Amino acid sequence: MKAIGHTTWVVPDGRIPRQSTGPEPEFTSRDELFVLNTGDAEAHLALTIFYADRDPIGPYELTVAARRVRRVRCNDLIDPEAMPLGVDYGVLAESNVPVVVHLTRVDTSQPALAMLGVTAVPVAG
Amino acid sequence: MKAIGHTTWVVPDGRIPRQSTGPEPEFTSRDELFVLNTGDAEAHLALTIFYADRDPIGPYELTVAARRVRRVRCNDLIDPEAMPLGVDYGVLAESNVPVVVHLTRVDTSQPALAMLGVTAVPVAG
Amino acid sequence: MKAIGHTTWVVPDGRIPRQSTGPEPEFTSRDELFVLNTGDAEAHLALTIFYADRDPIGPYELTVAARRVRRVRCNDLIDPEAMPLGVDYGVLAESNVPVVVHLTRVDTSQPALAMLGVTAVPVAG
Amino acid sequence: MKAIGHTTWVVPDGRIPRQSTGPEPEFTSRDELFVLNTGDAEAHLALTIFYADRDPIGPYELTVAARRVRRVRCNDLIDPEAMPLGVDYGVLAESNVPVVVHLTRVDTSQPALAMLGVTAVPVAG
Repeated sequence: MKAIGHTTWVVPDGRIPRQSTGPEPEFTSRDELFVLNTGDAEAHLALTIFYADRDPIGPYELTVAARRVRRVRCNDLIDPEAMPLGVDYGVLAESNVPVVVHLTRVDTSQPALAMLGVTAVPVAG
Repeated sequence: MKAIGHTTWVVPDGRIPRQSTGPEPEFTSRDELFVLNTGDAEAHLALTIFYADRDPIGPYELTVAARRVRRVRCNDLIDPEAMPLGVDYGVLAESNVPVVVHLTRVDTSQPALAMLGVTAVPVAG
Repeated sequence: MKAIGHTTWVVPDGRIPRQSTGPEPEFTSRDELFVLNTGDAEAHLALTIFYADRDPIGPYELTVAARRVRRVRCNDLIDPEAMPLGVDYGVLAESNVPVVVHLTRVDTSQPALAMLGVTAVPVAG
Repeated sequence: MKAIGHTTWVVPDGRIPRQSTGPEPEFTSRDELFVLNTGDAEAHLALTIFYADRDPIGPYELTVAARRVRRVRCNDLIDPEAMPLGVDYGVLAESNVPVVVHLTRVDTSQPALAMLGVTAVPVAG
């Protein structure tokens, strides 16, 4: 099957909420990156995280198998360093093959689930 | 009237929530696919569902009459097999005529409605 | 100032929620169309509403003054006929000049505000 | 690193909620503009705010350092004049270099957090 999407995506508006209510891990506040790879080749992504008051950190390497989706909680991105909570960030995602990228925030900091979908911006590919 | 939109869409970030609060069916947690066909010909869509740890499943066939909208709860997609709850997925939607596709999640797993709109990514057409 | 945007937009995923909690009109459940006209000429829009089980209804005429925004509650669209509650619909918006269109759902059917942003799809212009 | 995105963005559907519940500043209802500048040059943005019943106000000047993100609460935009609460607006954002722009609404006017993501519309660059 053909690889569909774009090779470069920019994701604005990142910030992992600090507080949570309700049982873990389902109701833990979080930012999640979602990558869909429709193609027949493994996708290798390099993520660069941009911050408000220091230099970008990266690359975070992420692999998505052929014809698979992968959802990653941003607080599980720990190499080259763990992402901080409650801090503004943006993501540059560069892939060797076309993929589709999306960011979802689950926020339970007040005792009722809220969700935010951040549409990633395709740039090239 | 002219068929408007695109013939191929990719929908990231699928996952039907497992838990619900409140009366059915209005407050049942769900993912809903919405298709709008502005044109004068019936739209025939083939959906392929991509997962994290197994091969894609499909095609799920979906028909939208001329000049009509259609909303489908993803857990009503049962042929060739029922879609599981609480599992990450992405959708490739291919249509014979241009349409507009959107995904909405209604999540009542905490006792207050939350909604997530996932903007589908047009690819061709 | 230049007119910015597109002349044709398609809005999927419409449905005005039937139930509300909290004081009116701020917490009345609703779908709202938002139009931004940056240009120096008045924008005249013709809206066609598509349904699941009957022919499209329209045109609904909507004027947005030069260099102005306008937010319209869909249940205030009554000519040629009032839009029903709890019914799926899509919108085709055609303008004489480029504008930017957005749909927002405010849903208070469970006693906690939920919001859904539906990104309109630009088609031409 | 290359500047990625677009130089002109239009943001529909602005309205800073009037009411809040929960401790400040985290749970204060607000509209937030988020700008991501991946490039090696400082980004200088000029924002023009469009209203429903009076002429546009601007420019609001906003600087985003090279390889940085910046999140601004719209009620902190006070020069040339403070933005009013509870009033519909749209934003035209013009930058000297490509950037990515996003708007997020945090609404705690009912005692449960709700979030709305408004995808900005890229126009040029």
